[in-house]
Amino acid sequence: MRIAGRVDVDDLPRICPLLSRRTNPRFGEAQTRVVQVGSVRFGGERPVVIAGPCAVESREQTLEVAREVKGSGADMLRGGAYKPRTSPHDFQGLGLEGLKILREASRETGLPVVTEVMDPRLVEQVAEYADMFQIGSRNMQNYPLLVEVGRARKPVLLKRGMAAGLCEWLGAAEYIANEGNFDIVLCERGIKAFSNGEYSRYSLDLNVIPAVKAETFLPVIADPSHATGVAGMVEGASRAALEFGAQGLIIEVASDRLDASKPKCDAAQAISPRTLRRIVHYIDARQEALAERVLAA
Amino acid sequence: MRIAGRVDVDDLPRICPLLSRRTNPRFGEAQTRVVQVGSVRFGGERPVVIAGPCAVESREQTLEVAREVKGSGADMLRGGAYKPRTSPHDFQGLGLEGLKILREASRETGLPVVTEVMDPRLVEQVAEYADMFQIGSRNMQNYPLLVEVGRARKPVLLKRGMAAGLCEWLGAAEYIANEGNFDIVLCERGIKAFSNGEYSRYSLDLNVIPAVKAETFLPVIADPSHATGVAGMVEGASRAALEFGAQGLIIEVASDRLDASKPKCDAAQAISPRTLRRIVHYIDARQEALAERVLAA
Amino acid sequence: MRIAGRVDVDDLPRICPLLSRRTNPRFGEAQTRVVQVGSVRFGGERPVVIAGPCAVESREQTLEVAREVKGSGADMLRGGAYKPRTSPHDFQGLGLEGLKILREASRETGLPVVTEVMDPRLVEQVAEYADMFQIGSRNMQNYPLLVEVGRARKPVLLKRGMAAGLCEWLGAAEYIANEGNFDIVLCERGIKAFSNGEYSRYSLDLNVIPAVKAETFLPVIADPSHATGVAGMVEGASRAALEFGAQGLIIEVASDRLDASKPKCDAAQAISPRTLRRIVHYIDARQEALAERVLAA
Amino acid sequence: MRIAGRVDVDDLPRICPLLSRRTNPRFGEAQTRVVQVGSVRFGGERPVVIAGPCAVESREQTLEVAREVKGSGADMLRGGAYKPRTSPHDFQGLGLEGLKILREASRETGLPVVTEVMDPRLVEQVAEYADMFQIGSRNMQNYPLLVEVGRARKPVLLKRGMAAGLCEWLGAAEYIANEGNFDIVLCERGIKAFSNGEYSRYSLDLNVIPAVKAETFLPVIADPSHATGVAGMVEGASRAALEFGAQGLIIEVASDRLDASKPKCDAAQAISPRTLRRIVHYIDARQEALAERVLAA
Repeated sequence: MRIAGRVDVDDLPRICPLLSRRTNPRFGEAQTRVVQVGSVRFGGERPVVIAGPCAVESREQTLEVAREVKGSGADMLRGGAYKPRTSPHDFQGLGLEGLKILREASRETGLPVVTEVMDPRLVEQVAEYADMFQIGSRNMQNYPLLVEVGRARKPVLLKRGMAAGLCEWLGAAEYIANEGNFDIVLCERGIKAFSNGEYSRYSLDLNVIPAVKAETFLPVIADPSHATGVAGMVEGASRAALEFGAQGLIIEVASDRLDASKPKCDAAQAISPRTLRRIVHYIDARQEALAERVLAA
Repeated sequence: MRIAGRVDVDDLPRICPLLSRRTNPRFGEAQTRVVQVGSVRFGGERPVVIAGPCAVESREQTLEVAREVKGSGADMLRGGAYKPRTSPHDFQGLGLEGLKILREASRETGLPVVTEVMDPRLVEQVAEYADMFQIGSRNMQNYPLLVEVGRARKPVLLKRGMAAGLCEWLGAAEYIANEGNFDIVLCERGIKAFSNGEYSRYSLDLNVIPAVKAETFLPVIADPSHATGVAGMVEGASRAALEFGAQGLIIEVASDRLDASKPKCDAAQAISPRTLRRIVHYIDARQEALAERVLAA
Repeated sequence: MRIAGRVDVDDLPRICPLLSRRTNPRFGEAQTRVVQVGSVRFGGERPVVIAGPCAVESREQTLEVAREVKGSGADMLRGGAYKPRTSPHDFQGLGLEGLKILREASRETGLPVVTEVMDPRLVEQVAEYADMFQIGSRNMQNYPLLVEVGRARKPVLLKRGMAAGLCEWLGAAEYIANEGNFDIVLCERGIKAFSNGEYSRYSLDLNVIPAVKAETFLPVIADPSHATGVAGMVEGASRAALEFGAQGLIIEVASDRLDASKPKCDAAQAISPRTLRRIVHYIDARQEALAERVLAA
Repeated sequence: MRIAGRVDVDDLPRICPLLSRRTNPRFGEAQTRVVQVGSVRFGGERPVVIAGPCAVESREQTLEVAREVKGSGADMLRGGAYKPRTSPHDFQGLGLEGLKILREASRETGLPVVTEVMDPRLVEQVAEYADMFQIGSRNMQNYPLLVEVGRARKPVLLKRGMAAGLCEWLGAAEYIANEGNFDIVLCERGIKAFSNGEYSRYSLDLNVIPAVKAETFLPVIADPSHATGVAGMVEGASRAALEFGAQGLIIEVASDRLDASKPKCDAAQAISPRTLRRIVHYIDARQEALAERVLAA
C-alpha cells in the first residue's frame, strides 16, 4: 500500500536544502543564524519578547499599549493592521491607517514593529511601515505571498500552520530563503488537536521547538497567546516555551487603563501589562542565572 | 476559564449570514442552490464527476488523459497549472502554458475545466482559460484571494482546509459570497488526524457532508484522491462519499497508455481510466435505481 | 533524532504474526476468515447488521426493541448490560439482570446477542448469556481482558480505540488470537479529531476499512452510531461504510412506541426502527444488484 | 443537530462532584490536596521527581538504576513489572518477580516505588510490593480496575489517556474517589496528534496542567519521557512542565554503566543519570529562587 505525499524529516535535505542543517554547510552544528531587526537579535544570547495588541484599533489604544510594552522591558511591538478573520463581517483591521499608527508607536517608543501581511500586492506597502513581516498561520502555505516577502528583503516571522508538520513548515520557509532572504524567524503558535475548545484554544506543541533547532539554523519563538487562548495560561506557557528552547515570545497585551479596554478580537487571551512585566522579569532572572553559571564554570 | 476564538455551529448566523440556512431566506429547507458550470450542474439531480491529472505536465499527457476522462463519462476536467508544492524545488506547474493546454483539452473534449488559482494577481489570467476556479486546501483562509475570486464572477470550488472546522470553512465561503458571488461548490478533501501516514494520507471526513447540507444551501463534493492518498482506496471512497450525500467527486486520473506514465506529483493516488469508468458506472446504476424508486412511489 | 515506540504497517509481521496476511499462510489473498455466531456469518457474502438499544434499561424496553430489530430484518441483537460511562454517577447498566433480559430477547427473536464485557472476572458470566463478546473502545488495549476473552473461545467484536492506529488495533487483536481464538471481528467506531463536537461526536474513519482488509483476514464492520453521534447521519454513514468495504454494521436503535422512549444514554444517536428497515433494505437491494452482476458476467 | 455524548468543563460538577472544585467544598480555592507516599508529598512545596527504568528487566539492572536515581536526588522509583505492550509477542514484564526486585530496590535506596497495575485481579498483589499504583494511559478508562484501586486505599498515579479530554480524565479519577480514595495524582503524558511520529512520539499537552489545577484540587505531574519519546527532549520538556505548573515529573532513566545498557523497551526515550541530576538540580535552583523571592517580599 503506497501512500502519496508522505514525507519524513529524512526528506528535509530534498525539501529545504537551503535551510536544512544536513545540507547547508554555512552554519555550524550548535549555531543559530541570528536574525537582526533594528537592534533586536533573534537567536542571540537573550530571548526576544514581542508584545502588543491583537489588532490596531485606534491611535490612542495602540500608543497606550506600545508605551506599556516599552515600559515592561519588551523588545518589539506587534499589532495587526490587516487581520485575517473567520468571517468577512468581523473587524478586518484598519489597513494603511493601522500601519501608520504602528509606525508612530514605533517612533515614539523606539521599538521595532512586526505586523501581518496577507496579500502579495501589499508587501511593498507593509514593508514601508514595518520592520518585520508576519506571515500568519492561515497563510503559512500561501506560496506567492512567501515568494513576495522573500524578495522584499525584510525579516519575516513565519508562523506555523495550525496543522502543519515540521517538513511542511520548513518547506514553507524554504520558499522565502529561495528568493535569497534568510532572515526568517519561525514561530510555534499552537496546533489543532482533539482537545481544542475544551480547556484551551489550540494545543501548544513545544516538542517542535527542539526539533526545529535540530533540523535548521533558523531561530524559533513561541506565541503563548494563540496557543492557549486563555489569558491566565500565557505566563506559564511563556516560561515553558523558554525552558524548552524557544528563542523568543510573541504575546498579546491589552491596556487596563483604557476605557475601551475590551479589544475587538481575542479579548480572552490578552494579558495585562503587569503580567508582561513578570514575563520579562523571568527572562532577566534567567539570563542572570545563566551568566553566573558561565562565570562559575 | 474563558477561551478566545471559540466558535460553534450556532455562531454560523453571525459568521456567514449570507450562506447560513438559518439566516438567508432565499432558499428552501431541502433545497441546494444549483451551481452551473457550462452544462454541468452541481447540486442538481445527478452527482458531478470531475477528473483529470494531478498536474498538467505536457500537452500530450493532458490531451490523452482528457480523452480518457471524456470517454469514461465524467463531466468535467481538472488539472493543475499552478501547483502548490511543499518544496519550492518541486515541480511548480507549467503556469500559463498549462492553462492553454487545459483550454485546448477542454475544447477538444467539450468538458469544462476547473483549475487552481493561488495568487490574487493571477485570478484574471486563470479566469480567461478556466470555467471554474479551484481554491486549494492550503489557501482556504487566504482571504484576499477569496475576495478576488468572489469579484471575478466565475464559479469557485472551495476545498476545505486540512484542519478547518465547519465554521471556518463556511466563513471562508462567506468571503466569496460577500463579493456577490454565490456560485460556490464546497469540497471535503481529507483532514489531518493522528493516523495520517500509517495507512492513508489524510482522513476522509464524511461526517462533514450532511453537516454542510444542514447548515448551508451550497453543493458539496468530495475529493477521494487526496483524502486517501492511495489509488486502491479511491473507488470505495468515491462510492462512500456519494452514499453519505456528496453531490460530486473530484478525482485524479493517470493514463496507463503513456510511456511517461509516472506523473510528477502524487503518483500513488491517481487511478486508471478503467477505475474511473467503474465509478461513473456506479453513478449511472444509482441514478437508475433512484428513478425506479421514484416511479414506484 | 530517534523516536521511541514508532511503528509502521511494515512492523505488522512482528506485531501480529498470527493475524498479518504477510506472515500467516493459512488464508488466501482475497479471502476473509468467516466468523460464525449462530447462523450469522461475519465476512460471508452478505454484510451483517447488528442492532439494538444502547443500554438494556428494562425487560420491556429490550424486548420491544428486539422485536423491532427482528422485524427490520437485522441479523443480531446488541445491548449493554455493563456500560462504560464517563462518570461513575451515570447509569452503569443492569449487570447480570441485563444479561438475563438479553438472553430472553435473544430466545424470543432468535437473534444472537453481542454485549460488552469490561472486567476479566466477568468474562465467564457474560459468556453464559451472550453469543459474542464486545470489547469496547476504551478497553481496546486492556490486555488482561483480551487474554481472558481469547481463552473463552467465543467470538469477539473488537472495537477500535478512539485514537488507535492500525498497528495498535491489530496488535490488540493478536492478544486474543494468541490464546487460540481467531473468531475476531474488528469494528471501526470513529476516531478523535480536532473537529469532534462541532458537527459530529467522533470522525468516522473509513480509510481504515480497506487498510484492515489489506493487512489481515479478519472481518471488519463499522459503528455509524458512535462514529457520528447524530441520529440523522446514521443511515448515510451506514451506506458509506458498506460501500467502502465494511462487512457489517452495529447500530443503536430506540423504539418510538415506548412511553419511556428517551434512552438513558446516547439518545441523540439512536435511530428509529423505520430507519433501520431502510438500511436493511439498502443491503437487500445491493445484494440483488451484486447477484445480477455475477449472473451477467 | 444534536450530538450525543458531548461534554464540556461546565459538566464537571455532574461528572465528578467529588473532585470538582465547583462542587466539593472541602478544599480552598488555591489549595492542592497533598497526596503523601511515604515521605514524598505530591502537591507540596517542592515538585516530586519519580525516575527509573521503563521495565524491570533484571535484579542487577534495577538495583543499578535505582542507585543512580537515589544518587541524583530524585524522590521516588518507577519501573514496570507488568508492561502493556502493543504486541503480545513483546516482552511483557517480569510480573511478580519484577515486583520483588522493585521492593528490594526500594528497601536499599529508601525510595518509595510506583508501578503499573493492569489487572483488577492483581491489585492486591501489586499493593503488597508497591507504595503507589500506576494506572497507565491505555487503562485510563478501565473502570473495573479504577474501582479496584479505589478500594485498595493506596495512592494512585492516574495517567491521562492518549486521547482523553479533561472531562474524561477527571471522570476516570472520580471512579477512584467514589470508592473513598482521594489519594490520586494525575499525570499528563502526551496526546495523539497529527504530528506524532514526525519529530516526537506524542504531543506534550501542557495546556491541560493549569486547566486541571483550575478544575480540581488533585496534584498533577508530567511524563516528559513518553510525551516526547526522544531522550534529547526530556530535559527541556521537564523544565517546561514545571514552569507551566506541573507538580512533579516521572522520567525514564537507563544506566550507562551496564553492559546490557539497551533496555528492552523504549530505549530511545530513556535519559542518562547525568541528565536526571541536571533536572533535579534545576528544581533545587528553582526552589532556592522561590524561597528568596518569598523572603524578599
